[in-house]
Amino acid sequence: MTVLKPFLSDNAAAVHPKLWEAMRAADESDSPYDGDRLSAELDARFSALFGRECAGLWVATGTAANCLALGTLVQPHGGVVCHREAHIEVDEGGAPGFFLHGAKLMLADGEGAKLTPEGIAALVDPIRNDVHQVQPHAIAITQASEYGRTYTPEELAALGAFGKERGLGLHMDGARFANAAAFLGGSAQEAARAASGAVDSLAFGFIKNGGMGAEAVILFDPEAATQVRYRRKRAGHLQCKGRYLAAQILAMLDGDLWLANARAANAAAQEVAAGCGARLMHPVEANELFVRLSPAEREGLRAQGFAFYDWGTDSARFVTAWNTRAEDAAALGKAIAAL
Amino acid sequence: MTVLKPFLSDNAAAVHPKLWEAMRAADESDSPYDGDRLSAELDARFSALFGRECAGLWVATGTAANCLALGTLVQPHGGVVCHREAHIEVDEGGAPGFFLHGAKLMLADGEGAKLTPEGIAALVDPIRNDVHQVQPHAIAITQASEYGRTYTPEELAALGAFGKERGLGLHMDGARFANAAAFLGGSAQEAARAASGAVDSLAFGFIKNGGMGAEAVILFDPEAATQVRYRRKRAGHLQCKGRYLAAQILAMLDGDLWLANARAANAAAQEVAAGCGARLMHPVEANELFVRLSPAEREGLRAQGFAFYDWGTDSARFVTAWNTRAEDAAALGKAIAAL
Amino acid sequence: MTVLKPFLSDNAAAVHPKLWEAMRAADESDSPYDGDRLSAELDARFSALFGRECAGLWVATGTAANCLALGTLVQPHGGVVCHREAHIEVDEGGAPGFFLHGAKLMLADGEGAKLTPEGIAALVDPIRNDVHQVQPHAIAITQASEYGRTYTPEELAALGAFGKERGLGLHMDGARFANAAAFLGGSAQEAARAASGAVDSLAFGFIKNGGMGAEAVILFDPEAATQVRYRRKRAGHLQCKGRYLAAQILAMLDGDLWLANARAANAAAQEVAAGCGARLMHPVEANELFVRLSPAEREGLRAQGFAFYDWGTDSARFVTAWNTRAEDAAALGKAIAAL
Amino acid sequence: MTVLKPFLSDNAAAVHPKLWEAMRAADESDSPYDGDRLSAELDARFSALFGRECAGLWVATGTAANCLALGTLVQPHGGVVCHREAHIEVDEGGAPGFFLHGAKLMLADGEGAKLTPEGIAALVDPIRNDVHQVQPHAIAITQASEYGRTYTPEELAALGAFGKERGLGLHMDGARFANAAAFLGGSAQEAARAASGAVDSLAFGFIKNGGMGAEAVILFDPEAATQVRYRRKRAGHLQCKGRYLAAQILAMLDGDLWLANARAANAAAQEVAAGCGARLMHPVEANELFVRLSPAEREGLRAQGFAFYDWGTDSARFVTAWNTRAEDAAALGKAIAAL
Repeated sequence: MTVLKPFLSDNAAAVHPKLWEAMRAADESDSPYDGDRLSAELDARFSALFGRECAGLWVATGTAANCLALGTLVQPHGGVVCHREAHIEVDEGGAPGFFLHGAKLMLADGEGAKLTPEGIAALVDPIRNDVHQVQPHAIAITQASEYGRTYTPEELAALGAFGKERGLGLHMDGARFANAAAFLGGSAQEAARAASGAVDSLAFGFIKNGGMGAEAVILFDPEAATQVRYRRKRAGHLQCKGRYLAAQILAMLDGDLWLANARAANAAAQEVAAGCGARLMHPVEANELFVRLSPAEREGLRAQGFAFYDWGTDSARFVTAWNTRAEDAAALGKAIAAL
Repeated sequence: MTVLKPFLSDNAAAVHPKLWEAMRAADESDSPYDGDRLSAELDARFSALFGRECAGLWVATGTAANCLALGTLVQPHGGVVCHREAHIEVDEGGAPGFFLHGAKLMLADGEGAKLTPEGIAALVDPIRNDVHQVQPHAIAITQASEYGRTYTPEELAALGAFGKERGLGLHMDGARFANAAAFLGGSAQEAARAASGAVDSLAFGFIKNGGMGAEAVILFDPEAATQVRYRRKRAGHLQCKGRYLAAQILAMLDGDLWLANARAANAAAQEVAAGCGARLMHPVEANELFVRLSPAEREGLRAQGFAFYDWGTDSARFVTAWNTRAEDAAALGKAIAAL
Repeated sequence: MTVLKPFLSDNAAAVHPKLWEAMRAADESDSPYDGDRLSAELDARFSALFGRECAGLWVATGTAANCLALGTLVQPHGGVVCHREAHIEVDEGGAPGFFLHGAKLMLADGEGAKLTPEGIAALVDPIRNDVHQVQPHAIAITQASEYGRTYTPEELAALGAFGKERGLGLHMDGARFANAAAFLGGSAQEAARAASGAVDSLAFGFIKNGGMGAEAVILFDPEAATQVRYRRKRAGHLQCKGRYLAAQILAMLDGDLWLANARAANAAAQEVAAGCGARLMHPVEANELFVRLSPAEREGLRAQGFAFYDWGTDSARFVTAWNTRAEDAAALGKAIAAL
Repeated sequence: MTVLKPFLSDNAAAVHPKLWEAMRAADESDSPYDGDRLSAELDARFSALFGRECAGLWVATGTAANCLALGTLVQPHGGVVCHREAHIEVDEGGAPGFFLHGAKLMLADGEGAKLTPEGIAALVDPIRNDVHQVQPHAIAITQASEYGRTYTPEELAALGAFGKERGLGLHMDGARFANAAAFLGGSAQEAARAASGAVDSLAFGFIKNGGMGAEAVILFDPEAATQVRYRRKRAGHLQCKGRYLAAQILAMLDGDLWLANARAANAAAQEVAAGCGARLMHPVEANELFVRLSPAEREGLRAQGFAFYDWGTDSARFVTAWNTRAEDAAALGKAIAAL
């Protein structure tokens, strides 16, 4: 019988053993909510990582992390510019509409699901500055993007400058921030700073990278953090045993596990990419591959035990994870090359 | 050095070992969100427990559970009748206003934080049936109540009949539902049914009873469940590794662990109560005790290592948990008796 | 046949002839929305009246005026302190919940439906400063109050100082602001300033005072005005022929018609009050009277052609308007005195 | 001096004399809100006009009318399909996000700002039937469209059938419904029925057609009307002197004034169109014209006293109204022909 070789998604991967250890170690009674010793460490740990003062709040999902952060940048009568294929627009079940009290998502275009100042300007410049039209208040980008593309520090700097010039806050959906950081390279601090640029807020994802149920809302404006603490509770996202979420995040930060896990996933993706050649629809800059494959070819791969999602009619998406087996990645690359 | 004897709250207690086991066992890759094998069992398991068809959806907090359930019973222009001291009014940071899009909480009175048909009628009967006044759409009760009181099956039947007569849905905040069920007695099925009566929805709490981060929204109307599945996602509460939440709940249901844990907590509470005599402000019908104690008496207890919250100026609240040590409970009872 | 002598409410009275003239005069084509010449005058006119810079925006109802103004003072996760019997709590159909995105109304007590620093402190002081409890962000008072009581300049100063000390914005529901101002006396400027104190925002009512469908949202913070202009549109309250609303308001301001109308209504109320003696439940400080009258007495008055609302079981409410006939008011006073 | 010949918009035109008469006649005291004799007539009058039972509620703006009606067809977690250039998307300041509690507008394409079953299907068919993606609940069309195009009865039947098949409610923004009806021809009843098809709700516009500040929300589901009455109040749109709005609407219905006014506007538009030839960007099926005109040509027209808006860089929009002078329309047609 064929053993399943999973490339469906990183979002269902096992929890990393070090996180299990950390959670068990948190069993000892402590203050509820975020009053515990572990949660109390987060602000300082993230400030050290990013090299500027920030608040780090745990929350159970990336959707909540994005929406809570965006709430600090946009008023209900305003809008958030995002890519037409952004996760917040396409895959969050309308959560921004809920959390932002009806603030509008405004859809811009850009290659590889990445925004550029030009793409945003093309959207927002025609907006009349009057009350009949929703005015943009913020920009949301995804790092790595929905097509596995990574914003370079230069691109981030350009977006940051554009946002400042236009008075638009800049949020980063970092569900796969670690993979982007790993792609950019350097030490944990260098990678984190390069990948985040000068964003106002970041949803720093850990779940797809070996976590169980903890992401971090990173807010580079401490006043905003106060508001988010209230809104997290109001959204039912303040867990009373929050120390288990903090434990996950701290275990990820300890010894730069977050970066090591992401490097492993990225390496597996490159292993697969090596066999894809011109079939690749997007450069592989994180841990996702979009590959042109006919239905018959996909059937062939599945018959060999590879599990993955179709992407439209003539292609497929493969996602590697922190625990993708090297032999599976190699085998997939070879199998695609052999088609 | 005095070892701490914790009676602060059940909401920060350790996770039960069987839940850790179950979660680790869920590590194996499976479908994300609630598409996994474990999540798929919940509807049937809860239907069997309650003896009528229902849907059971995991969610990370009681606040979210309450609000998602209430959303099926109230329109944004309507109101939810609850006790003036109900958790949803007093301690959920305005979450009902958020989840219910501004639907109003309407505050009724009742002894021990329990509602009665008479108390509700006194609130709603004066409301003019016109568009200037918010009309009640639903009733929310807490089982066990915020003062550790348990609704009897007769009381629940009366509330259910009243709700039906007035066209008001009935929701139960069951953050300590297990403790109420344990108090009412009988097998797991008997206790669950007695404690829930004929409510339309129930937030079945597990976290205070040995869980980590999983409550169940129980919906006795399957159509409502469909809506709640969308709204759970929209509220950022659909975790991608939901199998770890399902695992917690199933481990609680297996062998009726939920009931055993609650019985243990209740027994510890009774142990403490035995020493309180006339100091008790409310009958102890679950795992909370509200005890008249002067500041000096409270200081004395704390000097002996007992940890608890003040309750106003002249009393204290003690909460037992599934893992309260029998000797601690006995010691506390004796210490209070000795005052 | 008895001619009806109406004391039901001022909210259905005829439109003052000068307003009809002004509206007809506005028929001439002009810019839509609030881009017309008349709307453009409002800021300056109100700034002159109140003696400090403010913005004045027309809106069709008092409910919308209150809610739009409050939106500048309260965040969705916060609360607005108001009297338990305040119009925004009791008679606006849940509008604050809608406009404020679920921000909570927090109910304080006070004689005559008036708030005091002490009454507010009794409500807000017990609120724990943590995320579980909704924090107050603003105070809303009604001038004249729901029982026809008028805040004195000293009372307003005390509330303003209290608000500043606690960081709470202060809004005034002035549905009958003109009546309160008339009661306080002086020129139009003196009366307006005395009656408004140092509030942050004011819903300046004209409709009950001879208008058709125009109130003014007065914002003493120009930045807030910008936001309200967007929110007015977003709430569907930006009328395209706004010049007809501006025309009503300007006609009211011209020659201090607003004050003359209110004085007429107040005088009629005093005429009635003269016959009420100890039956009065509240001092008459505007144009409303709450009078102890048995069912039989009320029947007797109705048989004489007086129209009014019951107020509970043993009293009645009488409201005078700008066009209450002097002979009707005198007749009512005599009829009550004769009971 | 050149007399201004206005073709800017119908939304700032004078109020028709018959409406002034009707409003003045409503001055006599009556019940407040919608309890007056005039408001009470609306349901029956509209039911007779449309030939099926419906409720007709006045409201001050088209934006509010659209949003209140849509609220009966869409849940906050759902979506409303509309044209990319629909007024509710482009020109209502985000009102749908506010009134619908964050429900999403989903943008479809179609010629002339008109939707077709095919265009809608292209948008909604790729939506996965899972909780991650917002599901469409309703369709909103504009009659006449934002480009002055009129849906034929056949097109409406096709959309109605498509909506029924997909379980999507159908709403019509009828800001210029009268112009569409007039274009389709026949008696008032024939025209109204032909232009509305089998929609579930209609925002029947009167303001652009000679009204002052009254549109009608037409609901073909009486239960929905009950909800809308509450939501109208909740949105601050229940005016206490509602009889003045009802008076406007009834005056429009009396003697089919609404149709006569629209015919006049349409005739003026055709007069202009006669001079436009191939410059017309869209067929003229109501009272709007979109005409290719260079900047120099536009300048030339303005020098002759014609007032109108630019439409992008190389065209202009002209709108006629119920009171457009025949000689102005003729002059404009000739002036364009002479370019």
